[in-house]
Amino acid sequence: MRIALLAHGNFPDDAKTAVGVLRYSDHDAVAVLDRDRAGDRVSDHLPDVQDAPIVADFADVPDCDALVIGIAPIGGGFEEGWRPDVTAALRRGCDVIAGLHDPLAADEEFARLAAEHGAELQDVRQPPDDLTVADGTAGEVDAHVVLTVGTDCSSGKMTGSFELRDAARERGIDAEVVPTGQTGIMISGWGTAIDRVISDFAAGATERLVEQAGDHDLLFVEGQGALAHPAYSGVTTAILHGAQPDSLVLCHVAGRDRVGGYDSFQLPDTPDYADLYESMAAPISGATVEAGLLNTSEYDRETADEHLSTYADVLDTPVADPVRDDVDAVLDSLLAGVGE
Amino acid sequence: MRIALLAHGNFPDDAKTAVGVLRYSDHDAVAVLDRDRAGDRVSDHLPDVQDAPIVADFADVPDCDALVIGIAPIGGGFEEGWRPDVTAALRRGCDVIAGLHDPLAADEEFARLAAEHGAELQDVRQPPDDLTVADGTAGEVDAHVVLTVGTDCSSGKMTGSFELRDAARERGIDAEVVPTGQTGIMISGWGTAIDRVISDFAAGATERLVEQAGDHDLLFVEGQGALAHPAYSGVTTAILHGAQPDSLVLCHVAGRDRVGGYDSFQLPDTPDYADLYESMAAPISGATVEAGLLNTSEYDRETADEHLSTYADVLDTPVADPVRDDVDAVLDSLLAGVGE
Repeated sequence: MRIALLAHGNFPDDAKTAVGVLRYSDHDAVAVLDRDRAGDRVSDHLPDVQDAPIVADFADVPDCDALVIGIAPIGGGFEEGWRPDVTAALRRGCDVIAGLHDPLAADEEFARLAAEHGAELQDVRQPPDDLTVADGTAGEVDAHVVLTVGTDCSSGKMTGSFELRDAARERGIDAEVVPTGQTGIMISGWGTAIDRVISDFAAGATERLVEQAGDHDLLFVEGQGALAHPAYSGVTTAILHGAQPDSLVLCHVAGRDRVGGYDSFQLPDTPDYADLYESMAAPISGATVEAGLLNTSEYDRETADEHLSTYADVLDTPVADPVRDDVDAVLDSLLAGVGE
Repeated sequence: MRIALLAHGNFPDDAKTAVGVLRYSDHDAVAVLDRDRAGDRVSDHLPDVQDAPIVADFADVPDCDALVIGIAPIGGGFEEGWRPDVTAALRRGCDVIAGLHDPLAADEEFARLAAEHGAELQDVRQPPDDLTVADGTAGEVDAHVVLTVGTDCSSGKMTGSFELRDAARERGIDAEVVPTGQTGIMISGWGTAIDRVISDFAAGATERLVEQAGDHDLLFVEGQGALAHPAYSGVTTAILHGAQPDSLVLCHVAGRDRVGGYDSFQLPDTPDYADLYESMAAPISGATVEAGLLNTSEYDRETADEHLSTYADVLDTPVADPVRDDVDAVLDSLLAGVGE
């Protein structure tokens, strides 16, 4: 699929979705829309992802199949400054894909233009409407199921899942990511935003995703939130029990010791945190923490290596920074028990 | 409020909501509708709750303010056999209160009749539409917050909450229940069915309830599900972290060792289960299990006492069967640290 990525005013640093799609998806990006950087190329800012021209508005976008909203403002609302590009895309018959809190389909103008021009409005954050409670059966899939879990939100669970998938594929393993959040869904073209599911059905929605992908040999389920998070731990637990993983990878941001946005809450020490995940997993699937991923992007190489060394010591497992380094040792650890 | 309780074919054994309302609410029950037992009185079946005549249909119900749907069939759907009573109530201008999966307000006939006769359709299972994520602030309320948690669903969390409230009130304490499920909401006339809330907002919805009731001296938050439940643990976690309780009461059904409806999943041993709740509570509010409630209804007195004795030993706290016995020792334990 040929796509354009809308990221006005935010590319690349605050356009997590656009960058994730450029880095990990199979889609062919024909342009990024950012009126503040029009005339640049993606490679001027990010050398290690697929390249594309950066343009000011949709009129300058080459032929494509879909426009992807590649930024998510706080609150997840639609910004009116994007309307001219969305309507231009729909008039050209392009689908528009968004992961916003407010569905595009609820906008009268968008709905009318989509109908008139045969385009589809894809609101990936809206869950399917036929979800039910979990049966407790995800553990029966043939695939080896790895769940990325975190010490906090935004700790690298999505990035780690895709990096591990790509490393496994390089070894010829039939590996896939199970997307549970909007960016993962946009990258992969399927999945369910578990945080938007009615809480009674959140484990069931996760179970369904794992079972849909269960024919692959190796699954990396993208975790959400964190077990010791004052607001999102319910989502985390639903995914931990709904996915019934075989292995856990604990993702952490080097130097972080308080919950992001909730400064009065301290993160548990890393070994205690790993124990907490294992204690919660024990009654359902018995998964253990078999590796760690550490985001060291705020540190120079030497300090990063110190953090990585400490993290490996306290977890007593292989660890890696999945963006800076390769994840071979982490993957080896996750695969050690497979097929035995 | 004068209410009639619809419980056709199921009173009293399979009419948990009707019985809960009769036992714990302040509403004045003027009739129970059960065509299989018409002519009996409530007291013929349940000697220890408020009495009322049992009638065959709404035509025989005395003047009242609301008809409460007091049974919840599996799946939570509306049964067409109830339609004549619901329409008769609306024609008389009575509100109709239900906790069904399918909202009454979505039924065209009910909506039309309610509008015509100035009656209200109250679907208590539908959450408010302005919920948000938790701020992590429930712990700041003045009240001492007790959360009833369970080893499984249907383990006595709702019943225990109301029994403890009533025992506290008998001592002159300003105590209240924070209802998180449909029966609790019908009994109390307020609350939110946390299992129907979008999972991202489930802790936030719980936090809001606790803060709404925070001016009381003692709150009993009704827990839901169980931490080691393959389907509902996300709801349990959201309530545990959203409510930020000071104390936990662990509710268990004597003799149960597998998850109800999920026979392949064993319940953790009681001390491990208590540890699991405390480990999960630790990073957020630090609550500990300070008492236990045990449902011994399947056993004779002697065997019940053996189960109670064992439960007290393994929990190392006071315990009680809140329906069979008084809860004074349990309440003492929960109040031991208050005001210190």
